[in-house]
Amino acid sequence: MGSPVHRVSLGDTWSRQMHPDIESERALSGDVALNIHRVFVRALRSLGSEEQIAKWDPLCKNIQIIATYAQTELGHGTYLQGLETEATYDAATQEFVIHSPTLTATKWWPGDLGRSATHALVQAQLICSGARRGMHAFIVPIRSLQDHTPLPGIIIGDIGPKMDFDQTDNGFLQLNHVLPDGTYVKLGTAQSNYLPMVVVRVELLSGEILPILQKACVIAMRYSVIRRQSRLRPSDPEAKVLDYQTQQQKLFPQLAISYAFHFLAVSLLEFFQHSYTAILNQDFSFLPELHALSTGMKAMMSEFCTQGAEMCRRACGGHGYSKLSGLPSLVTKLSASCTYEGENTVLYLQVARFLVKSYLQTQMSPGSTPQRSLSPSVAYLTAPDLARCPAQRAADFLCPELYTTAWAHVAVRLIKDSVQHLQTLTQSGADQHEAWNQTTVIHLQAAKVHCYYVTVKGFTEALEKLENEPAIQQVLKRLCDLHAIHGILTNSGDFLHDAFLSGAQVDMARTAYLDLLRLIRKDAILLTDAFDFTDQCLNSALGCYDGNVYERLFQWAQKSPTNTQENPAYEEYIRPLLQSWRSKL
Amino acid sequence: MGSPVHRVSLGDTWSRQMHPDIESERALSGDVALNIHRVFVRALRSLGSEEQIAKWDPLCKNIQIIATYAQTELGHGTYLQGLETEATYDAATQEFVIHSPTLTATKWWPGDLGRSATHALVQAQLICSGARRGMHAFIVPIRSLQDHTPLPGIIIGDIGPKMDFDQTDNGFLQLNHVLPDGTYVKLGTAQSNYLPMVVVRVELLSGEILPILQKACVIAMRYSVIRRQSRLRPSDPEAKVLDYQTQQQKLFPQLAISYAFHFLAVSLLEFFQHSYTAILNQDFSFLPELHALSTGMKAMMSEFCTQGAEMCRRACGGHGYSKLSGLPSLVTKLSASCTYEGENTVLYLQVARFLVKSYLQTQMSPGSTPQRSLSPSVAYLTAPDLARCPAQRAADFLCPELYTTAWAHVAVRLIKDSVQHLQTLTQSGADQHEAWNQTTVIHLQAAKVHCYYVTVKGFTEALEKLENEPAIQQVLKRLCDLHAIHGILTNSGDFLHDAFLSGAQVDMARTAYLDLLRLIRKDAILLTDAFDFTDQCLNSALGCYDGNVYERLFQWAQKSPTNTQENPAYEEYIRPLLQSWRSKL
Repeated sequence: MGSPVHRVSLGDTWSRQMHPDIESERALSGDVALNIHRVFVRALRSLGSEEQIAKWDPLCKNIQIIATYAQTELGHGTYLQGLETEATYDAATQEFVIHSPTLTATKWWPGDLGRSATHALVQAQLICSGARRGMHAFIVPIRSLQDHTPLPGIIIGDIGPKMDFDQTDNGFLQLNHVLPDGTYVKLGTAQSNYLPMVVVRVELLSGEILPILQKACVIAMRYSVIRRQSRLRPSDPEAKVLDYQTQQQKLFPQLAISYAFHFLAVSLLEFFQHSYTAILNQDFSFLPELHALSTGMKAMMSEFCTQGAEMCRRACGGHGYSKLSGLPSLVTKLSASCTYEGENTVLYLQVARFLVKSYLQTQMSPGSTPQRSLSPSVAYLTAPDLARCPAQRAADFLCPELYTTAWAHVAVRLIKDSVQHLQTLTQSGADQHEAWNQTTVIHLQAAKVHCYYVTVKGFTEALEKLENEPAIQQVLKRLCDLHAIHGILTNSGDFLHDAFLSGAQVDMARTAYLDLLRLIRKDAILLTDAFDFTDQCLNSALGCYDGNVYERLFQWAQKSPTNTQENPAYEEYIRPLLQSWRSKL
Repeated sequence: MGSPVHRVSLGDTWSRQMHPDIESERALSGDVALNIHRVFVRALRSLGSEEQIAKWDPLCKNIQIIATYAQTELGHGTYLQGLETEATYDAATQEFVIHSPTLTATKWWPGDLGRSATHALVQAQLICSGARRGMHAFIVPIRSLQDHTPLPGIIIGDIGPKMDFDQTDNGFLQLNHVLPDGTYVKLGTAQSNYLPMVVVRVELLSGEILPILQKACVIAMRYSVIRRQSRLRPSDPEAKVLDYQTQQQKLFPQLAISYAFHFLAVSLLEFFQHSYTAILNQDFSFLPELHALSTGMKAMMSEFCTQGAEMCRRACGGHGYSKLSGLPSLVTKLSASCTYEGENTVLYLQVARFLVKSYLQTQMSPGSTPQRSLSPSVAYLTAPDLARCPAQRAADFLCPELYTTAWAHVAVRLIKDSVQHLQTLTQSGADQHEAWNQTTVIHLQAAKVHCYYVTVKGFTEALEKLENEPAIQQVLKRLCDLHAIHGILTNSGDFLHDAFLSGAQVDMARTAYLDLLRLIRKDAILLTDAFDFTDQCLNSALGCYDGNVYERLFQWAQKSPTNTQENPAYEEYIRPLLQSWRSKL
């Protein structure tokens, strides 16, 4: 309780920075319904005409309609151009007719569509006089406002059971020559159409993805100081599992990355707001950076949070497999985030394209074309580089400048390498598309290292801002160091490849890493308490503040329907089975 | 259909080698109930006296009783000595009294215990005249054979919802001074007590863990040649996702490891049968190797199969998140295997202890003590070693001897390194237990690399036996190469650390790897068809042989209760919400 971390309460720090929606998500143990209604409203506000907004916005606000956003189809996901739903303009009636020409054109996955929504914003291929004009969005009434039955020409339903998100009725929708309501939503520039997707992605990070990993960390850490297993010495009592080095190795990197992502999500939100203002003033110069950062961070956060939450779950042993621990649903929820709002591999490859472009930009001779300045996240491409890491002992790895430079070095090398592979293939006659596909594994690697660099850099910058809070700064610096070094050890091949690090230096980094685990141990509980989740919101028998793990697990189990209801299998199967031998006697 | 793989049908090969239980598990789409009954029977047969076996075995066989095996407790898992359940010998009555002295002593997790079992084999601390005599097993009747109610002194129930295994009623059991039936199960030597656990672990690998990954591979591979997304060239139709290099990178290593584990599980079963015979003849010399192999392979297979199945699931994008794909339950089932029958980290560290001992054995001077020969799996510790890998071009990495040697080299280096760290700490004054805990992260790394080596070595040995089937051998060699090289690339730091590989050689390995992906592409479907799973057993809308993915997904979704039953939320919430504005007009 006397720790500086706890006294200043990081919880206050983050609630002050938070959006109301995000706060409500954090405060609830369950899930908020009709989330996609919000996406519809946001799309309407950014894409609709004034007249359209005036008509639809109040209906949405008062929930006089329930709306969803229908983009993905049974046979088509990320690739917008592949969508089959058609919107044909009939010049005679001056109407648009929306139609699903095939089974695979069936809209599939939109949230709240299965049993709730009355209206859908439908993405469709616009066809005018036989010519395809690309994707446009149409507001389509789908269920009667009188009795909720599907409207004529609408086939609609639920897509069935999923790994999680039982609370959301993800649905399907087939349209048989349907007329939309309110004509189509007029599209703005390509840039402004893109914005709603960016907003969703950026808000997702701090609103949905990150808090789930943080909850998993709190639960696993609290359980790990209650759970005892085996003895460190034969004469000792059984040890708290958190005192085992292997348990620390499982949990502390997840704790570190929770903080790394927190600071990054905050700065990304600031950058987004800054860019948004600029875009409203017709300045689109931030867009490539905004795109690369939001896609890259969505991919990395969802990937690492999923992996981290599963690590936390397994670190709780058998009890982590019980739903009463709260951990299974955290993991299965996060798993979805690796796919929704842009499949991660696709997103990483978009980052890779940005990196290739940025690298080629640095290679232009200064006189030849007017050189645009590099986006800040890739400024390291032209920074002075070292051929060898100067570290001479383990403690040298506790230097933010040293490890930030190391990550930048590796990112530059891999980006350069990926560009060279691409160029070698095209120069040997492959067309550019084939060359791209044959080098995607290499691009992926470069994009991931770049993203890791961004998180390390972001964390060190956040630390600098804490100079007036030296006690907090010191505790958080250990997490920053751990995050950077853990990544170096996990990817040590990338650092050893060109001898930037020597084997001896990797060993030094490992020594520094193992020392950090020991140091972080004493603040571990306070660092998770600081996330400020209530017991109710954690909804976990293992993770409550009071540490009464076993009492709660036992009590919660008693409430299971398998204990409060008769076992139908007994009369039907077990009794006849057990007693069948008697009749034979 | 004309491929050599398909004509010879690997399915035949493995069904011929299979145990009936394993075959039934493979053939069913659902799960077999009362699995723990079998574990009880096996324990009884190996640990019981002749009299006990004569009494209990027929009762079990005819299912006149339903039995379970009760070991883990609410507060205690892997660490047997920590179990709290007591069996006190009362010299006056010459009876054992079984008792749960605390809440944490409650037996927790035994399968079939929650609502089904009538008897439990209870592990308890034997107390004679106040002295603790270690763990012993007692057969305890827990439910009435008349009406299935708990017997006096027994508190029993279900532990509640889990991540999967809904079909198993994992239960809890508290004993209040209960008398066991049939006195206690007489224990044999420490070695023979250990055997039932080994059998369970070995059969688990080919019976439960591996088939799940194989199913996931079949589903994901079949879906990946039906699913089309985006274009490789602007003029092409949308491409099958399996033609993307990144999709191949996701799936083919899982396919390769499925085969690697198959061959390993077969040879492990042979080795187990061989050792078992020896043990019955009082020859315990194989036991350390058997222990190290069964623990190591259980840990590695469960870890890699879980990771692999999740990779397959994500490779199916959004549809992989639908339970109709069959993939979510495969993943959540496998997740459990990382914890049950020995938590993986604990198991890897047992392998590490074996490696440390084996290494120290190689360091004894030949004259000082009678030198036992090294176990076969660690014979590489004394094999001639190269300081540098001789590969000069990518194709050199397609040589089983080259990569087996490379893996052995790295394993030796890491084991040596872990021993040195241990010795350095003890020489600087740490006691041996503290020194062990402070080096477990290093030992873990060594144990994992050793296990990977075992899988590579095992795969190459299986290939050698296929010399009379050159066409099959050629196809499977690509998978073996891929398995070995993929591991080298994933752990490249370990190979670069002492410059055994140079950066240029890692690049060659990557070239070889990318070439292999392209080559394996054409056999990928046949290699999964060869696993010989029926459509019914796959139970997946994405994975059927006919490739009618979208039709089946659509049809199966229609059958969801959310589509066939009224939506109770409409009358209760949605209608009042949507119509509330009318009354205000």
